[in-house]
Amino acid sequence: MPQIRLALAQIDACVGDLAGNADLAADRCREAADAGAHLVVLPEMALTGYPVEDLALRESFAVASVQALHRLAQRLGPDKLGELAVVIGYLDRDDTGPRNGAAVLHRGRVVARQFKHHLPNYGVFDEQRYFAAGTTLDVLRLHGLSIGMVICEDLWQEGGPVTALGGAGVDLVVAPNASPYERNKDDTRFALVARRAAEAGAPLAYANLVGAQDELVFDGDSMVVTADGSLLARAPQFVEHLLVVDLSLPDRPRAASGCSAGLDVREVVLSEEALPGWSDTVSPAVAEPLSDEAEVWWALVTGLRDYARKNGFRSVVLGLSGGIDSAVCAALAVDALGPSAVHGVSLPSSYSSEHSRSDAADLAERTGLRFTVEPIAGMVDAFVGRLGLTGLAEENVQARCRGVSLMGLSNMHGHLVLATGNKSELAVGYSTIYGDAVGGFAPIKDVPKSTVWELARWRNAEADRRGEPPPIPPSSITKEPSAELRPGQLDTDSLPDYALLDEVLDDYVEGDAGFTDLVAAGFDAALVEDIVRKVDAAEYKRRQYPPGTKITPKGFGRDRRLPITSAWRERAPH
Amino acid sequence: MPQIRLALAQIDACVGDLAGNADLAADRCREAADAGAHLVVLPEMALTGYPVEDLALRESFAVASVQALHRLAQRLGPDKLGELAVVIGYLDRDDTGPRNGAAVLHRGRVVARQFKHHLPNYGVFDEQRYFAAGTTLDVLRLHGLSIGMVICEDLWQEGGPVTALGGAGVDLVVAPNASPYERNKDDTRFALVARRAAEAGAPLAYANLVGAQDELVFDGDSMVVTADGSLLARAPQFVEHLLVVDLSLPDRPRAASGCSAGLDVREVVLSEEALPGWSDTVSPAVAEPLSDEAEVWWALVTGLRDYARKNGFRSVVLGLSGGIDSAVCAALAVDALGPSAVHGVSLPSSYSSEHSRSDAADLAERTGLRFTVEPIAGMVDAFVGRLGLTGLAEENVQARCRGVSLMGLSNMHGHLVLATGNKSELAVGYSTIYGDAVGGFAPIKDVPKSTVWELARWRNAEADRRGEPPPIPPSSITKEPSAELRPGQLDTDSLPDYALLDEVLDDYVEGDAGFTDLVAAGFDAALVEDIVRKVDAAEYKRRQYPPGTKITPKGFGRDRRLPITSAWRERAPH
Repeated sequence: MPQIRLALAQIDACVGDLAGNADLAADRCREAADAGAHLVVLPEMALTGYPVEDLALRESFAVASVQALHRLAQRLGPDKLGELAVVIGYLDRDDTGPRNGAAVLHRGRVVARQFKHHLPNYGVFDEQRYFAAGTTLDVLRLHGLSIGMVICEDLWQEGGPVTALGGAGVDLVVAPNASPYERNKDDTRFALVARRAAEAGAPLAYANLVGAQDELVFDGDSMVVTADGSLLARAPQFVEHLLVVDLSLPDRPRAASGCSAGLDVREVVLSEEALPGWSDTVSPAVAEPLSDEAEVWWALVTGLRDYARKNGFRSVVLGLSGGIDSAVCAALAVDALGPSAVHGVSLPSSYSSEHSRSDAADLAERTGLRFTVEPIAGMVDAFVGRLGLTGLAEENVQARCRGVSLMGLSNMHGHLVLATGNKSELAVGYSTIYGDAVGGFAPIKDVPKSTVWELARWRNAEADRRGEPPPIPPSSITKEPSAELRPGQLDTDSLPDYALLDEVLDDYVEGDAGFTDLVAAGFDAALVEDIVRKVDAAEYKRRQYPPGTKITPKGFGRDRRLPITSAWRERAPH
Repeated sequence: MPQIRLALAQIDACVGDLAGNADLAADRCREAADAGAHLVVLPEMALTGYPVEDLALRESFAVASVQALHRLAQRLGPDKLGELAVVIGYLDRDDTGPRNGAAVLHRGRVVARQFKHHLPNYGVFDEQRYFAAGTTLDVLRLHGLSIGMVICEDLWQEGGPVTALGGAGVDLVVAPNASPYERNKDDTRFALVARRAAEAGAPLAYANLVGAQDELVFDGDSMVVTADGSLLARAPQFVEHLLVVDLSLPDRPRAASGCSAGLDVREVVLSEEALPGWSDTVSPAVAEPLSDEAEVWWALVTGLRDYARKNGFRSVVLGLSGGIDSAVCAALAVDALGPSAVHGVSLPSSYSSEHSRSDAADLAERTGLRFTVEPIAGMVDAFVGRLGLTGLAEENVQARCRGVSLMGLSNMHGHLVLATGNKSELAVGYSTIYGDAVGGFAPIKDVPKSTVWELARWRNAEADRRGEPPPIPPSSITKEPSAELRPGQLDTDSLPDYALLDEVLDDYVEGDAGFTDLVAAGFDAALVEDIVRKVDAAEYKRRQYPPGTKITPKGFGRDRRLPITSAWRERAPH
């Protein structure tokens, strides 16, 4: 049985950092060569980072990407490293414009290149805006084995390029990916990879990015699945990793070039001599997937940490209200950046409860974050007195004085300001624009309120398990939510219970359900009309909200593009 | 020679307002029938408004659109109106999902429908996210004439559906459009329509939307061009209009059904009896296109007016600094909404010059807008004193106290807040987030500073021509630009001269030029690096900026989608 040692390099590439990403790739190639690998696979657009958005259209950037690719090939050329075949994603540009490409580097040269066939143009993806689709498949001959390549979305297509490779008869399929995390996606992925491996009649190696880019976080979860659908190896989530696997492959006839399933399959010969067999095979690592809450927590930590790091921030500042949202944001920030980089500020007004201050202080003590108190009454009075503000205007000015204070501290000390709103609030517009919505990043923007509570409980239980102090004050978890902008105010004055609200939002926002569907699902018609009206009316606020990590199948942002100006309302048919 | 009387209905449809848009369409059909027209053409997606963005994916909305179409057909059914053939754009939905359709209504029924073939997925357009492409062409037989249809982007394709209609041999091509305004586009359009009319060998009737939707403004500019490329009729820009034209068409053989240029051409017979000829033909209107400045001005007025009106605002509030940007925004608002709906507030700080107040007062007197003065020193002192702000933090807090004041007035009185920043500032981040960037709408967001001055001069000259007082104080036009956030501050302390800055920005932002191109164009390398760095670093501010009317080929927003997190910098190759 022919053998090959394969390495998947799960790296955290930064968009636009061609030199830094090439360094990451080169380091992993060296590590793979040291581990005796013959082939290393890096993720989709690992050289440029992903998604590069309209940078794909900038000719200077595409040219620089191709140059960086050739430089990387040369750099890996000498000695033992040159024998390693390296598959890496990059941005190409030809007569048709930019291309989403995967190249093969070998003995100092770029020996093969192939473009993505299926260009996702839904959800957060706009690839048909940028790329022309590939029409050919390059099959590598490496140590007498035939190795096909497909890029990310190509895997998701029934009867697509994988079928063509199966028809040609390859020994192995490798797939560079940039597949963003969303809740429960990893199970979908494994099932998909297994299905495609069966279609190819060969093992499938899936290499994914890790780390965050603006609103997206990549969880890694790289894996190798055999032709019969068993999981041979799996990388841990949310960390960089080199997954090394020995494959013993059945003897089979050489893959056929020419047309297969309507696609042009071309052979690129690197080496025909089979490897001498070996028996001391590496034991493949099969990482346990994280629990649901752990996965969401680490997605949020990664999202915040990478946004801060990749944008040059060493510290964050956030308002601490004593409530659950700011407590969870603070705990995330402490896990992401360490307690000394997190500056929590209690900003009490004359309507703030005693527990708003004491719970914030408790949080600071539990986590070790830097804590200060800055009362806002003087600022609020200046506006209210001068402008005669009353009612909602007076409520909002409190939130805005907090926002201006946090921005002032950010300007003085260079902290990144965190907005602490959750997805349920953002959905119904239960926030003050330029007030609590102020921030460079919003860590729990895509986390429904019900999930915020779940995460708080999980994180505290996790601390218990580790024998550490639970970071989140129990009373922040159990108290009734309140914005505290007027005496005795509770969220439930304006909103339904969050459990019910989140159910309706899940159907309306993520499911895009209409009025009739929502009522058929058992929700009260008046409740539906009220929630839907609030969601639609808050679109203008969401447009000006800071970015935050996407964890659901449909986050607010690139995922859900609705007009601000719209007369359409879901309501009972008339 | 066979004759037909054609009407193009240039209407201001509102996104999502199916009932209101159907009313607009019905009114125009009645008017067309009264004028003796046989065929009326309404714009692309006139029934739903355009663009509906992700509403296209909402099944309830697509179903409602199809129902509204059938209801409109029934409503137009009876009497003389039923004899009118009506071409109207709408949102359809079939097994493949949503479709960008044009339907023909006749005698109370939907008698033909056709889907857009070419789906733009560049610039502000995302149509491949929504629609499957059409593959068939319906040719109407109306009074013995063969009339083909194409939708918007189909016109922009060499060798596309128009070629197929030309091959089949039609007598007339009608084109519903939703083509947004951008500077100098109308000349491109006429040339394009003329080219396609020649390709069709038949007159081409182009019906466009008018009015604004979020950042887009539609200018109308509907026209009829003969097969030999002469302009027969043209509607005025930025107003609703019914353009009625008599066409005398050469005798020609009946158009062939079947395959033409690879597309399936199907005939739909409405009536074969030729019309009795008439000699009292209507004299076709040929509106003069507006001058460049007038066109931009009315685009901005329309954008602001429709945003306010369609979102339920009857008044606006804005800060008046005595500078050119706020003066031009105020003049636009007065032209859009009338002086009594415009609330200008002078918000002087201790660094504000005497002329900042007197020029604002002069503007108020010239335009008749409502004017108040609200000094911010007390508010600023409250923040500075409590938080110990200095330097940039102290500068920004002044802008933010103004923002909070305007939002307070908005909350008290229901005014829409206008942000008065121009495109040059927005490009280089020369604005304070949550300060002068506060607003629900930003009228001159896409207007480079050089153009702001041009517009001010043009608007004053226009007033002179009309014998009215020029709205903009001459000293606001001639004074040196300053943010007045510290003593003696001038924009030129931080930025190059605006004329030079705008040239670089034009190449970098609109032209997507790289470093080498910019230097080759004659700009100083250090200047280029500085400007490019500023533009890239301000992406996070632009993301939270309010929407504003697009007038250039590439506005910030849907037109230019760049990551916030990006290590890519245009610089000298190393």
